[in-house]
Amino acid sequence: MQIRTLAMRSVAALGLVCAAAVHAATDPLPSWNESASKQAIVQFVQKVTDQNSASFVPPAERIATFDNDGTLWGEQPMYVQAFFIFDRIKALAPQHPEWKTQEPFASVLKGDLKGALAGGEAGLVEMGMATHAGMTTEEFEKIVTDWISTAKNPKTGKLYTEMVYQPMLELISYLKTNGFKPYIVSGGGVEFMRPWSERVYGIPPEHVIGSSILTQFQMRDGKPVLVRLPKIDFVNDKEGKPVGIQMRIGRRPIAAFGNSDGDLQMLQWTAAGAGPRFCLYVHHTDAVREWAYDRKSSIGQLDKGLDEAQAKGWTVVDMKQDWKVIYPSDTGQAKAKSAY
Amino acid sequence: MQIRTLAMRSVAALGLVCAAAVHAATDPLPSWNESASKQAIVQFVQKVTDQNSASFVPPAERIATFDNDGTLWGEQPMYVQAFFIFDRIKALAPQHPEWKTQEPFASVLKGDLKGALAGGEAGLVEMGMATHAGMTTEEFEKIVTDWISTAKNPKTGKLYTEMVYQPMLELISYLKTNGFKPYIVSGGGVEFMRPWSERVYGIPPEHVIGSSILTQFQMRDGKPVLVRLPKIDFVNDKEGKPVGIQMRIGRRPIAAFGNSDGDLQMLQWTAAGAGPRFCLYVHHTDAVREWAYDRKSSIGQLDKGLDEAQAKGWTVVDMKQDWKVIYPSDTGQAKAKSAY
Repeated sequence: MQIRTLAMRSVAALGLVCAAAVHAATDPLPSWNESASKQAIVQFVQKVTDQNSASFVPPAERIATFDNDGTLWGEQPMYVQAFFIFDRIKALAPQHPEWKTQEPFASVLKGDLKGALAGGEAGLVEMGMATHAGMTTEEFEKIVTDWISTAKNPKTGKLYTEMVYQPMLELISYLKTNGFKPYIVSGGGVEFMRPWSERVYGIPPEHVIGSSILTQFQMRDGKPVLVRLPKIDFVNDKEGKPVGIQMRIGRRPIAAFGNSDGDLQMLQWTAAGAGPRFCLYVHHTDAVREWAYDRKSSIGQLDKGLDEAQAKGWTVVDMKQDWKVIYPSDTGQAKAKSAY
Repeated sequence: MQIRTLAMRSVAALGLVCAAAVHAATDPLPSWNESASKQAIVQFVQKVTDQNSASFVPPAERIATFDNDGTLWGEQPMYVQAFFIFDRIKALAPQHPEWKTQEPFASVLKGDLKGALAGGEAGLVEMGMATHAGMTTEEFEKIVTDWISTAKNPKTGKLYTEMVYQPMLELISYLKTNGFKPYIVSGGGVEFMRPWSERVYGIPPEHVIGSSILTQFQMRDGKPVLVRLPKIDFVNDKEGKPVGIQMRIGRRPIAAFGNSDGDLQMLQWTAAGAGPRFCLYVHHTDAVREWAYDRKSSIGQLDKGLDEAQAKGWTVVDMKQDWKVIYPSDTGQAKAKSAY
């Protein structure tokens, strides 16, 4: 009503309102505040897509790589895949009576997550192998698909797939519209992400790079299957991320997005290429709408990456300041607000 | 002249000739004779791209995988990558005086290829590691690029990149036009193929899957590099091909193309998926224009694949009968012939 009244005052005012409306309608990043982070993104995309710019990059070379946990979706109070592991242990417990007394499984079954994680990485790997191997790739895909459709974060009560970051969804879409190929490059299991990456992020399975276990081709009753073996094949984290990118894509990204020290080497590898480059860290600063863990997280180091981002002038997103909304479910509210 | 005379006889005849000319101009596979192989390809593509067909496949799922050696380019008298290895040994010999007496290097340096291959797979791996590792990925890319631009097949005197199969280039292009994503899935080294796959086949590096050695992220003078290590990471052959496809693409192909037993598991994996599937073997039957090695090759087994193709009704291309031309350089001659 306010807008309508204003618009009716004069033709000139009407023109201004229309221009503003058009701008709002075409803003590809509506959930981003008009801060330096948004400006840096838009300026980078504009210059690499401008054929008259010295910074023009052909579409085929517009590779953008995104970390997943903490960059595209929440990673608190634990990595989502850790919750998946715990739920699988509970589901498989009847077939493993020995788990009642065998750590770290016993702690998981008692609901003692601190105890479950007491064994550190070795314990996590043991639980990972026990829950991610022993089935065919098709069987595992169904297990993940079923789980992700119902599993909820214990702190928020939301589905994990509802805890993706709306501003990052807009960024992925914006990059695709501008001829980029966005890839997920995550320390998480590649076959844990692929079943839902296209539906949730618009990133197809072939553009998902992750950690993997060994897989073996077998014939079962004359039918070929791929069986998942309890042995780690590749860890796509830290120094592994540039290796995973080179092995899977064979091109160096021109843009990379992360949030932790596990992403630092990916950003270093991206930044060191010739020509225009864009590196961005998501900084978790919003204790009200998400989590504020700044440089200290129970699940991984964050300080080296943030230091290097500052030293190198990479873009650091302050979630509290830079993002109008966090989750897709917040956008209705956000839209209502922006109408005033 | 004949055509022109015929055309001038009557308007009706002219109409027929025009129709034939239009057909020729739009034939996506002009180097294929009008045989059952070509019909099978065209019928498959038509049904999976027809939205009104029960066999329709969405574009995102139109994955097609091609073996390289013997399927897309020649593999006689040896795999091209073996020639690369021998040339690299000769180039590196001044830095390795011990190779003068150390087998299999000594035989290579004496030009005794039979002796060089006497050590079987172990000897080949040793030579592969000595020539493919110890440099950065960027350095290796330059080595391959330089070599492939000048190296020639000792039997034909052609550049290796001139010995690609024109009918298969047309097939790749035809599939791309119809929304397919063609991938190379080869036992060859992935970083040996990527530097030229886009220029030669129109297949970009991210759609090339191959064997690999381990690669390590290192910082050198503050600059990140990926260093190639002398250790095999993954063998993308036989049972490895479906594994490589699953790890890299995460989707099962709907069409697969090979020529040897090393491709059989890829074709089995492809054929076993639900919905329409297409499997094709290239059978080397042309002793005059290429090589006729039928079921026996010095470089690998071919018989199991051809037996299974026959048993399962897969398409088998008879190179002598089905292909008008073999190499791109033959197409001028072919066009002149087809004018009569």
